[in-house]
Amino acid sequence: MGGNPVIDMLGRRLRLGVVGGGPGSFIGGTHRQAARLDDRWEIVAGALSSDPEKSRSQGREIGLSPERSYASAPEMLEAERGRADRIDAVAIMTPNDSHFSYASLALRAGFDVICDKPMTNTLEEAEALLRLVLETGRIFCLTHNYTGYPMVRQAKAMIEAGRLGVIRLVQVEYVQGGKAKEDDPPPGPGQPWRFDPVRGGPSLVLGDIGTHAHNLLRFVTGLEIEELAAEVGTVVPGRRVHDFAGALLHLQGGARGSFWVTQAAAGVENCLGIRVSGTLGSLEWMQEVPQVLHFKPLDAPAQVLSPNGPDNFPLAIRSARLVKGHPEGFPGAFATIYSDAAEAIAARIAGLEPDPLALYFPDAGDGLAGLRFVSAMMESSRKGGAWTKPERG
Amino acid sequence: MGGNPVIDMLGRRLRLGVVGGGPGSFIGGTHRQAARLDDRWEIVAGALSSDPEKSRSQGREIGLSPERSYASAPEMLEAERGRADRIDAVAIMTPNDSHFSYASLALRAGFDVICDKPMTNTLEEAEALLRLVLETGRIFCLTHNYTGYPMVRQAKAMIEAGRLGVIRLVQVEYVQGGKAKEDDPPPGPGQPWRFDPVRGGPSLVLGDIGTHAHNLLRFVTGLEIEELAAEVGTVVPGRRVHDFAGALLHLQGGARGSFWVTQAAAGVENCLGIRVSGTLGSLEWMQEVPQVLHFKPLDAPAQVLSPNGPDNFPLAIRSARLVKGHPEGFPGAFATIYSDAAEAIAARIAGLEPDPLALYFPDAGDGLAGLRFVSAMMESSRKGGAWTKPERG
Amino acid sequence: MGGNPVIDMLGRRLRLGVVGGGPGSFIGGTHRQAARLDDRWEIVAGALSSDPEKSRSQGREIGLSPERSYASAPEMLEAERGRADRIDAVAIMTPNDSHFSYASLALRAGFDVICDKPMTNTLEEAEALLRLVLETGRIFCLTHNYTGYPMVRQAKAMIEAGRLGVIRLVQVEYVQGGKAKEDDPPPGPGQPWRFDPVRGGPSLVLGDIGTHAHNLLRFVTGLEIEELAAEVGTVVPGRRVHDFAGALLHLQGGARGSFWVTQAAAGVENCLGIRVSGTLGSLEWMQEVPQVLHFKPLDAPAQVLSPNGPDNFPLAIRSARLVKGHPEGFPGAFATIYSDAAEAIAARIAGLEPDPLALYFPDAGDGLAGLRFVSAMMESSRKGGAWTKPERG
Amino acid sequence: MGGNPVIDMLGRRLRLGVVGGGPGSFIGGTHRQAARLDDRWEIVAGALSSDPEKSRSQGREIGLSPERSYASAPEMLEAERGRADRIDAVAIMTPNDSHFSYASLALRAGFDVICDKPMTNTLEEAEALLRLVLETGRIFCLTHNYTGYPMVRQAKAMIEAGRLGVIRLVQVEYVQGGKAKEDDPPPGPGQPWRFDPVRGGPSLVLGDIGTHAHNLLRFVTGLEIEELAAEVGTVVPGRRVHDFAGALLHLQGGARGSFWVTQAAAGVENCLGIRVSGTLGSLEWMQEVPQVLHFKPLDAPAQVLSPNGPDNFPLAIRSARLVKGHPEGFPGAFATIYSDAAEAIAARIAGLEPDPLALYFPDAGDGLAGLRFVSAMMESSRKGGAWTKPERG
Repeated sequence: MGGNPVIDMLGRRLRLGVVGGGPGSFIGGTHRQAARLDDRWEIVAGALSSDPEKSRSQGREIGLSPERSYASAPEMLEAERGRADRIDAVAIMTPNDSHFSYASLALRAGFDVICDKPMTNTLEEAEALLRLVLETGRIFCLTHNYTGYPMVRQAKAMIEAGRLGVIRLVQVEYVQGGKAKEDDPPPGPGQPWRFDPVRGGPSLVLGDIGTHAHNLLRFVTGLEIEELAAEVGTVVPGRRVHDFAGALLHLQGGARGSFWVTQAAAGVENCLGIRVSGTLGSLEWMQEVPQVLHFKPLDAPAQVLSPNGPDNFPLAIRSARLVKGHPEGFPGAFATIYSDAAEAIAARIAGLEPDPLALYFPDAGDGLAGLRFVSAMMESSRKGGAWTKPERG
Repeated sequence: MGGNPVIDMLGRRLRLGVVGGGPGSFIGGTHRQAARLDDRWEIVAGALSSDPEKSRSQGREIGLSPERSYASAPEMLEAERGRADRIDAVAIMTPNDSHFSYASLALRAGFDVICDKPMTNTLEEAEALLRLVLETGRIFCLTHNYTGYPMVRQAKAMIEAGRLGVIRLVQVEYVQGGKAKEDDPPPGPGQPWRFDPVRGGPSLVLGDIGTHAHNLLRFVTGLEIEELAAEVGTVVPGRRVHDFAGALLHLQGGARGSFWVTQAAAGVENCLGIRVSGTLGSLEWMQEVPQVLHFKPLDAPAQVLSPNGPDNFPLAIRSARLVKGHPEGFPGAFATIYSDAAEAIAARIAGLEPDPLALYFPDAGDGLAGLRFVSAMMESSRKGGAWTKPERG
Repeated sequence: MGGNPVIDMLGRRLRLGVVGGGPGSFIGGTHRQAARLDDRWEIVAGALSSDPEKSRSQGREIGLSPERSYASAPEMLEAERGRADRIDAVAIMTPNDSHFSYASLALRAGFDVICDKPMTNTLEEAEALLRLVLETGRIFCLTHNYTGYPMVRQAKAMIEAGRLGVIRLVQVEYVQGGKAKEDDPPPGPGQPWRFDPVRGGPSLVLGDIGTHAHNLLRFVTGLEIEELAAEVGTVVPGRRVHDFAGALLHLQGGARGSFWVTQAAAGVENCLGIRVSGTLGSLEWMQEVPQVLHFKPLDAPAQVLSPNGPDNFPLAIRSARLVKGHPEGFPGAFATIYSDAAEAIAARIAGLEPDPLALYFPDAGDGLAGLRFVSAMMESSRKGGAWTKPERG
Repeated sequence: MGGNPVIDMLGRRLRLGVVGGGPGSFIGGTHRQAARLDDRWEIVAGALSSDPEKSRSQGREIGLSPERSYASAPEMLEAERGRADRIDAVAIMTPNDSHFSYASLALRAGFDVICDKPMTNTLEEAEALLRLVLETGRIFCLTHNYTGYPMVRQAKAMIEAGRLGVIRLVQVEYVQGGKAKEDDPPPGPGQPWRFDPVRGGPSLVLGDIGTHAHNLLRFVTGLEIEELAAEVGTVVPGRRVHDFAGALLHLQGGARGSFWVTQAAAGVENCLGIRVSGTLGSLEWMQEVPQVLHFKPLDAPAQVLSPNGPDNFPLAIRSARLVKGHPEGFPGAFATIYSDAAEAIAARIAGLEPDPLALYFPDAGDGLAGLRFVSAMMESSRKGGAWTKPERG
């Protein structure tokens, strides 16, 4: 992430308009930090809340000019289209049920889009959105941010380069404790949108973290899931949404796998982990210590790889900002997604070819794959764990 | 493991006869070290090989007297029955397909038995063996040695004491790389018994390590598996035996779980691990660093527990020999199983009550549960992952 | 680091002018990321190189306007003083021998200053600079960035709150391998400034990393070094600069300590570590895994503390941007220094009281303490390890 | 540790008589387990206490025959000399101040000796004991047990093989919390012998653990300390014995080092650690996780080595009993010392050449080096940290 290819190509930073993510929102702050870190974006416009008044005042709170602190996303899109210094892209960080409509509006208004995951709440929306992306020819970046970690990209690059040989076994898990309490949410009206199956999506755990785990598996291994046998359910009493999901997997090429996600593991912080074994060795990575990648070759000593350390592949190197031994963490990984998308957008504007290594950010195809996975998981679970093929192609 | 309750009760050590486990065998050396470590056993007799000549000579190689280096197990049992200083128990460490016959012989000859896992190769044998144990009234100890680790026992004790609240989620995995190579075993005649489905049992991976993982789950949580949806199979080409197995689990009390075992994860050493989450927190343990137990309470800092460190429960304390900070490892855990069995046997001989904490070694009931689990796994896998209830009661 | 107190207080971001740190510089990129992350600073002016042409062009490369891409720091200071939208502060990230002159110029020109460490190359300069800071009444922030890690601040807060009781023992080490090679730098002219004892300071290892280790010890424990017995020297042949230093320490209140720093430990990345033991327990932290703090109480289980996890103190909480389990790393720690300085500066401008927790960034007094420490280390070493008192007060 | 070279050479186990280490003693149980584990020793005689009655009864408690449960060590030595089945060696595990007299008695009576560390309490005794060993030609094994860990031996072998190149930097520390409390020991008469400067030696911390750290440094690096600048002292108030010691080191060949030991680090368990850096990389090992050795090569990925894993040297392999992934811990390391000594003694008795790899157990020369180190540490400390040369040759 050295240099600034956006300024190099355009002589300026890209201009971003944000939808959602007001000051109190964790994900909003995270997106805006990610946009700022590598200095490829200026956040110049926003519609931060579905409440028009709040939307305007929160825009000013995060430092937008009053004139570009809009009352709503449609207003922003309309006004920005008419400006000479119009925004280059729209970033969407709203509750899941509105991703589809905001993204569609932005694409139709001619903007590139950066969108939080899951891409949509339903498979139908995901299919429609991918079609729209293809029709409009805009860039669509989905923030499966964990794929931005240097050591996740190193794992992908090592597998692409054949360091593991043929992939045989994959384990992926995403275990959290954030929704372990029975009184979370407290009963009664006014529950957070995530706990409402309509707004948060048909399966909270799958939308929230299952799609991350699924995307990580696909990103690292380069393999699709051909069949799965799953259970999706709820272990915390009194809850209308899913808080765990497990599956056995058949992957392309004959590999077998295990999948396990939950938000009800009391006391666990954020254990998104993956182990991939091939004929030549295994790789292990875990998000709580993202600065290390364990490589266990078949007949040689285990290795501990680190960002910008020895034997890093170009894809890993370009996503690490610091010299070795200086861990970066979550914000850097998230920023890599934003910065790669910026490089792709700037290249398009400048009529240049982007660095091919900039094109590893997740896109609408990945988003659709995620929704198809969620759909297949739920179908298999309904059928008592019957082997089920996620839709493909 | 301080003091020597066997000498205290009997004024002497117990006398052990061993079946199998000649000098070249990993498991044989391991059993004998386990018997020696706490000085509760003298190994005085043996039939170490199915080849009579080798059996006699190998007995002398491990330091047995010529007269008690027997040509075969039946010879040993017959001869020992007639001696004043006859052995007190028989330890069986032969290939899996002979456990049943040797154990039956020993029990019928009136000896207590220590037997390597899996208890038998078939469910029918396991049922018959348990009946025989009950009929003869002998002590039967199954060496699911991983339950001897102080921190595994601490986990069990913490859960028994309610420290996790109600159990909701369990993940257990046993991942090894020892059978990752395609040329292991080399094709042709003379393959090791483990790779022969008849001698090694119907499912290599389940017999070898799956029963350990299953036993660990039951030991730590105190819960039985009510239903499972499984796949058992082979990822290394050209192999007649299973090298991976996965399952989703329904446990007693409504807990949900994931199970994953394989011996084909190239480069991985011996990752037997468990994570248990209850309403009040989670516990995590992994065999490669057995001296630590991670306890993650719901709303308090994560703890790292260690043998004989603060907050150890009596069950953990009695299985640790050293002051804190002095890790013991695998031999100590294995020895704990032998030493507890010794205490139970000595108490029986002396007509005394054993320490109740000595009675946590796995027994024939655990062995039968293991075979029932293997059977249910294979049945579910044959039925395309259908939810299947292991036999109970 | 939630909210944006600078915008809250001033209705705008602070404006920063940078001196040094052109596009190829590691530390330049690091400073600018730190300034951007929390959106409290706009980098609007710069003099990035001692070469006037390069200085102007590099300013534009990092996105400055041509008119504020200055040829030199004096030019920048002069021009900015006359602007209505003048910069609020100057950030200095030049080779060590120029810190003093640039900082003095900036202070005299009426600007607040953020300066890379070591504050100066000589003790005399450090004394003069502190006097100038006091005379001018400007805010001076020294980027001992490691004190910005949430878990370092948690350690400090725990000790301030008495969680360790009376401090008895301290070990601090900073071990790197970056200068382990004999041909680093290659012989001949044009060596990097760090390897020139005049430009890089009298002791490379002490200036580069020794002052960080010293500052970390003082920050975490709150104790000054009363006496030290030291050796400072060179283990890589053919080098004119120091590459290791060790010392025994007498600290305030009778605590004893050990100090060890080197840049010649081949293969080691960036092991800045500290262990502090008091009457009630010990704390351990290491920079390569900065997201964990080990707390080992006297008679209770060891704890693993994490940012925004249970039992975090306010000082730690305000320096963590994310929910628990999302590691931040080095850029976040560096940004905390910039953001706290911004809060202090904005409060001064607004005539408000800053949050007292914003005032933990290192200042000129800390910088002088660092130079006094370097001086005492070298004096003790020259005197054959004689106990030597760093100047105080 | 496969096979049983003692039985192979002698057709029997070696017979051991023990002095000290009654049932309640940690170190006694440890020695006896170490003797039993590899089945090379039978413990057949003992004088377990300085109280004659207790000595006899405790012998029987640990399973000795009444006739060989002696009242005192002299009685044992006298009686055993006259037996046909006399003991082959004497193992001494008494308080430090009696090591010299018991070892001298045993050597003079013609027995080989295994002795706990420190070898003696005073330098003069150590010199006299080494002379006696040389005069009598007996084997003398000093139980610096930490050198028995496979990964410590791997480190030694890697350095001997040149994997680190020329050694430049060494850090060794031994940090414990066992003596952190002010009321340990409680004031008044009847204090444990360790807290009595006469019985426990002139410096508790140096005798107890400092000699271990010193021996580990010498064993791993193969280098002697040429000069040291030290402080030895007490941080816990009201104590007559030392509880910390630190030093800077000059090693053979120009390497520099740091040494730090304490028993007053509240909450720390047993952190004996070493880092060695040479021109080609660094090695790191720590006793609390003894099953891993970190190797950080200069320009290649860091490695995690494990017992019987890839790239193990023969010296490491022979000290590991189990297949990789099965950690052994402290008892195995201690047993390796006993088993190697047994192999050397059996070879002497049989008139055979022992395996050269059996001869890495610490001996009287190592014991003398330890006492010389203690003496130099105390002299340097008395002289205000003056560089002091430990006696050599």
